[in-house]
Amino acid sequence: MSRGAGPGPALAEELVATAHRLADAAREATLKHFRSDGLSADNKDLRGFDPVTAGDRECEAAMRAILAEIRPDDGILGEEAEAVPSKSGLTWVLDPIDGTRAFLAGTPTWGVLIAVSDDGGPLYGLIDQPHIGERFEGGFGRATVTGPHGTRPLRTRHGRNLSDAILFTTFPEVGTDTDRRGFEAVRDRVRLTRYGLDCYAYALVAAGHVDLVIEAGLQAYDVAAPIAVIEAAGGVVTDWSGGPVHDGGRALAAASPEIHAEALKILGEAGIG
Amino acid sequence: MSRGAGPGPALAEELVATAHRLADAAREATLKHFRSDGLSADNKDLRGFDPVTAGDRECEAAMRAILAEIRPDDGILGEEAEAVPSKSGLTWVLDPIDGTRAFLAGTPTWGVLIAVSDDGGPLYGLIDQPHIGERFEGGFGRATVTGPHGTRPLRTRHGRNLSDAILFTTFPEVGTDTDRRGFEAVRDRVRLTRYGLDCYAYALVAAGHVDLVIEAGLQAYDVAAPIAVIEAAGGVVTDWSGGPVHDGGRALAAASPEIHAEALKILGEAGIG
Repeated sequence: MSRGAGPGPALAEELVATAHRLADAAREATLKHFRSDGLSADNKDLRGFDPVTAGDRECEAAMRAILAEIRPDDGILGEEAEAVPSKSGLTWVLDPIDGTRAFLAGTPTWGVLIAVSDDGGPLYGLIDQPHIGERFEGGFGRATVTGPHGTRPLRTRHGRNLSDAILFTTFPEVGTDTDRRGFEAVRDRVRLTRYGLDCYAYALVAAGHVDLVIEAGLQAYDVAAPIAVIEAAGGVVTDWSGGPVHDGGRALAAASPEIHAEALKILGEAGIG
Repeated sequence: MSRGAGPGPALAEELVATAHRLADAAREATLKHFRSDGLSADNKDLRGFDPVTAGDRECEAAMRAILAEIRPDDGILGEEAEAVPSKSGLTWVLDPIDGTRAFLAGTPTWGVLIAVSDDGGPLYGLIDQPHIGERFEGGFGRATVTGPHGTRPLRTRHGRNLSDAILFTTFPEVGTDTDRRGFEAVRDRVRLTRYGLDCYAYALVAAGHVDLVIEAGLQAYDVAAPIAVIEAAGGVVTDWSGGPVHDGGRALAAASPEIHAEALKILGEAGIG
């Protein structure tokens, strides 16, 4: 996505520092509960199993408290509490635990998603994995992962055809039958499909290890930070018709414009794009 | 599994120290290639996609070199090279990278599996996750995980019914149609099913976060270390009929005898146990 000038360098630095402060607080709040003996899930969704844990709620509350103190004019859009309208034109888009099911199962592929957006969409985003201690960030000229083995630039993989691609998704769990048909049409054309990584799959697109992520039924807070990180690393994220997806819906995240175009074409031919 | 006296304490200590030395060498060999730019997969299996990387081969070679030096009379059964017959009655069962597909995709849920067995099956096993720096071990009176947030005892979760269980599997990718029917019969009775973690799912059973793992088409080196770690932590691992599975096949790993019995009954009723 091509964007206007956006915030100047001083404000950009302040927003990045704020995002890291939020992510540090989120690590503390989530790790207190991750793999703890007493962890349980209330059932938010009576029709299915939509777990929300004390980890989710405390994590979002910790981030909101910091924003109320240091960025009181910014809006907040978070998974677990009411939206705060923006007075500054900037809005923080927060998912305290993306992958609550993974969190409940002890799997280290859930993450904390933090993005700061203006009216045009996300400007900067951060995908943090507290248990591993791994932080992927992109925007304002940055595209970096910092983890247990040091810091590396993020750069998506270019030059690979769809037939050699690695595709990730949370299907077969998520999506309508139509969504699934779209996913399967692309799945049948790639080299390798893997399931169930939540936001970590987007981080791996940014890091150059995965070529495509296809998902449906997303909320804005599921996708805002991944968009910023992947685009900063050289990838493309749209909905299944090639339009913007930062408000949620069906996402197609690709390592390169070429592989994005190939996948869009297949979705279009399947009558689903 | 109830076992005889086995090795005395001095030999047990030596075997544990050897296993850790192998795991340390495996970390170095695998991390050199994990998420590297040049990583590619040769195709071992012309019918499908069975990737083997330089990481797999160098890792197993590094472990074999250590064993040849310090435990020359022990046998070796590994994924990537020929079996070495045992003169001591002990055999090392090695999977240099369990989850090569995850390794290729940059996902930190692959692992190095190291077990030492006698004729009755695995005595001690270790599941190592090099990227996270997390090591699960069980046997000779030990049951421990050491990771980025310290050391904790491993203890499987008891007292949970099948209807509240978390089930992991590598299906839908692995197994015959009959295998899949068995898996689906159990899947339809649990609370939450997650896909695609390879050996890390067994580690999470041992750590008390996951209640069941059901898999098929396993080799001895896929399952020997998980059996040792899970049994040391209080769980039960058998084939789908309740018999031993350390030579491979269909595995049913359960956090408790009760949940194991419930799952076995469902497999039996489906005519598959």
